[in-house]
Amino acid sequence: MRIMVLGGDGFCGWATSLHLSDQGAEVTIVDNFARRDAETELGAESLTPIVPLDERLDAWHAVSGHSIGFRQIDVARDPQGLRDAIVEIEPTAIVHFAEQRAAPYSMRSPDHKRYTVDNNVSASHNLLSILAEVAPATHLVHLGTMGVYGYGANGKPFQIPEGYVSATLRSGNHVFEKEIMYPPDPGSVYHMTKTLDALLFYFYAKNDSLRITDLHQGIVWGTTTDQTERDERLVNRFDYDGDYGTVLNRFLMQAAVGHPLTVHGTGGQTRAFIHIRDTVRCIELAIDNPPATGDRVNIMNQLTETHRVRDLAELVSRLTGAEIQYLDNPRKEKAENNLLAANANLRNLGLDPTHLSEGLLHEVIAIAEKYADRCQFSRMASTAKW
Amino acid sequence: MRIMVLGGDGFCGWATSLHLSDQGAEVTIVDNFARRDAETELGAESLTPIVPLDERLDAWHAVSGHSIGFRQIDVARDPQGLRDAIVEIEPTAIVHFAEQRAAPYSMRSPDHKRYTVDNNVSASHNLLSILAEVAPATHLVHLGTMGVYGYGANGKPFQIPEGYVSATLRSGNHVFEKEIMYPPDPGSVYHMTKTLDALLFYFYAKNDSLRITDLHQGIVWGTTTDQTERDERLVNRFDYDGDYGTVLNRFLMQAAVGHPLTVHGTGGQTRAFIHIRDTVRCIELAIDNPPATGDRVNIMNQLTETHRVRDLAELVSRLTGAEIQYLDNPRKEKAENNLLAANANLRNLGLDPTHLSEGLLHEVIAIAEKYADRCQFSRMASTAKW
Repeated sequence: MRIMVLGGDGFCGWATSLHLSDQGAEVTIVDNFARRDAETELGAESLTPIVPLDERLDAWHAVSGHSIGFRQIDVARDPQGLRDAIVEIEPTAIVHFAEQRAAPYSMRSPDHKRYTVDNNVSASHNLLSILAEVAPATHLVHLGTMGVYGYGANGKPFQIPEGYVSATLRSGNHVFEKEIMYPPDPGSVYHMTKTLDALLFYFYAKNDSLRITDLHQGIVWGTTTDQTERDERLVNRFDYDGDYGTVLNRFLMQAAVGHPLTVHGTGGQTRAFIHIRDTVRCIELAIDNPPATGDRVNIMNQLTETHRVRDLAELVSRLTGAEIQYLDNPRKEKAENNLLAANANLRNLGLDPTHLSEGLLHEVIAIAEKYADRCQFSRMASTAKW
Repeated sequence: MRIMVLGGDGFCGWATSLHLSDQGAEVTIVDNFARRDAETELGAESLTPIVPLDERLDAWHAVSGHSIGFRQIDVARDPQGLRDAIVEIEPTAIVHFAEQRAAPYSMRSPDHKRYTVDNNVSASHNLLSILAEVAPATHLVHLGTMGVYGYGANGKPFQIPEGYVSATLRSGNHVFEKEIMYPPDPGSVYHMTKTLDALLFYFYAKNDSLRITDLHQGIVWGTTTDQTERDERLVNRFDYDGDYGTVLNRFLMQAAVGHPLTVHGTGGQTRAFIHIRDTVRCIELAIDNPPATGDRVNIMNQLTETHRVRDLAELVSRLTGAEIQYLDNPRKEKAENNLLAANANLRNLGLDPTHLSEGLLHEVIAIAEKYADRCQFSRMASTAKW
């Protein structure tokens, strides 16, 4: 099986590329190093020292015997280059991580908003227009976000379904029963781009019978997979800064370096989570189960559990003795929300969820402690407000 | 009142700019002449001989005494230029026509698909990000399309509402009553971009309290308004080619030059229509009735009647003696559809609909006959297929 991983040098992309290669797939990474460039822009490096991609690939070959290919292509700005690569490689599946993926980064400034929209929409649409033209049977596996659904059901219990929801629509005296896409409600420009992606996918599945899987992922935590552990040069990135760091990894990192755990608002936000080890497994399962040609977009929720942010802070505090510091919430969102989210699709395909456990939390703390001397305290605060 | 009209050199934009100027508004047109460039690309000029914009503006000043300003800005590619203009002009309202607006053009090739998406999404989002930054009280009036709704209710009667629909959502044992955006179902890449716009508007109204009106317009017919008639140099464009020509104007044009009326498929498509005289009046009404700050996006359907394409062909045939020619439908759509569409919002604001009448049809035929020697028969066929 030939698989292209767009954005394969990033946090999820790198772990996924190694996992799929380890499973025997012929993997080609496509990346423009936008994430490394953002490190330079923000002055905030990965806590773990990630080596240049060519060294990563050499190391992987040395430890596994597998080769991973690489093409440096800006998917959003160079559709011709992407087209040439797809024509040459003839991939069975393309995993699409090639989007700006941080909500705070997307809200830093008007320029960052525009970059996020232009980059993410063009990347996804370039890919779709090329698949429709030259590779309509290729399975596109895209990483969406649970954030497309929003978090509000007016306080009532309502399980967020997997993409589609059974609806009764009423207009005047007419009633119309229909399965619809769950109405999107994004909370940042970044999340908004994933709701735009969903409409692009809807159209190209309908008009061009493209085979598309959209995985609405929760917040990823952890950093290590079976593959990244095999050599120091294979280490995955670990973001803890105010833009790209995600909440649980940030708490574990803060505990490791003796910084208070910074909770925004009341910490009453309930969010969906998944360990990076499950992320890579979910993508493997998605690739192995493509929708039929001309079918609707296959939408699956990629999460294993939900937690209230405050509860996570208290858990990490109990484990480590770290203090909790409550800060103003920079986001425009409800202080408290419930979240019930379906995840039966991936479980039915064979996902055996990795749940939050002391052991895994300690594994992350150990990584954070190992590289604690690289920590830049000044980069930990979230500066984007909206 | 200061009003910027983005895309003010185009078909609807020009008629709107003159109408608003005639009403006493201080109008500034922003345009990058993309529509004139597309004429060159396609080798298909407006049937009516439109003069350069500076001559149009001189003529308008000569006949009306009103000055209309002009800035040549590519709204999609030059956000800084657009920002500078908005800061300087401090508009009360911005009317946004600055999008590629032809479905067949959007489906000509992968490059045309990409151009349409990149241009339309960046244009709308640049504008929104700038308004949020420097002019959050400015009222944005955007031209959408009835095509965002799709045309299918599985054959059952269902009135397309104005943007929002009352819904009962069911997931597992949970039930959730909610007013939602009517689920979009675009039929071309062009139409898809207007569904993307709707999500951009939703987010910026929610997050930044922008005041936004989205007008989902039917197919515009006619070419003349009270203002364009005042001087030959003010003539509005009249498109009849396979990309930019719209169905009723094409029939009237074909009748005028002795060409059979070309119907795609069975002609069973039911579509919404509005005369250009009503378009300009609707935009005036929308500007005069902005939503409150922080309110939801104000969505109104801008149409006055619906007709089956076949019925329109038969009407024009009866009036003129022209033959009807049935061709293969280049579009992927149902052969026959019903369309019931609400339009109470604009009527309640004061729209007095101009209905299809022999008199107005003959007015268009007269224009077409007047310029019949400029007709390029070879450009009449629709070449884009999807």
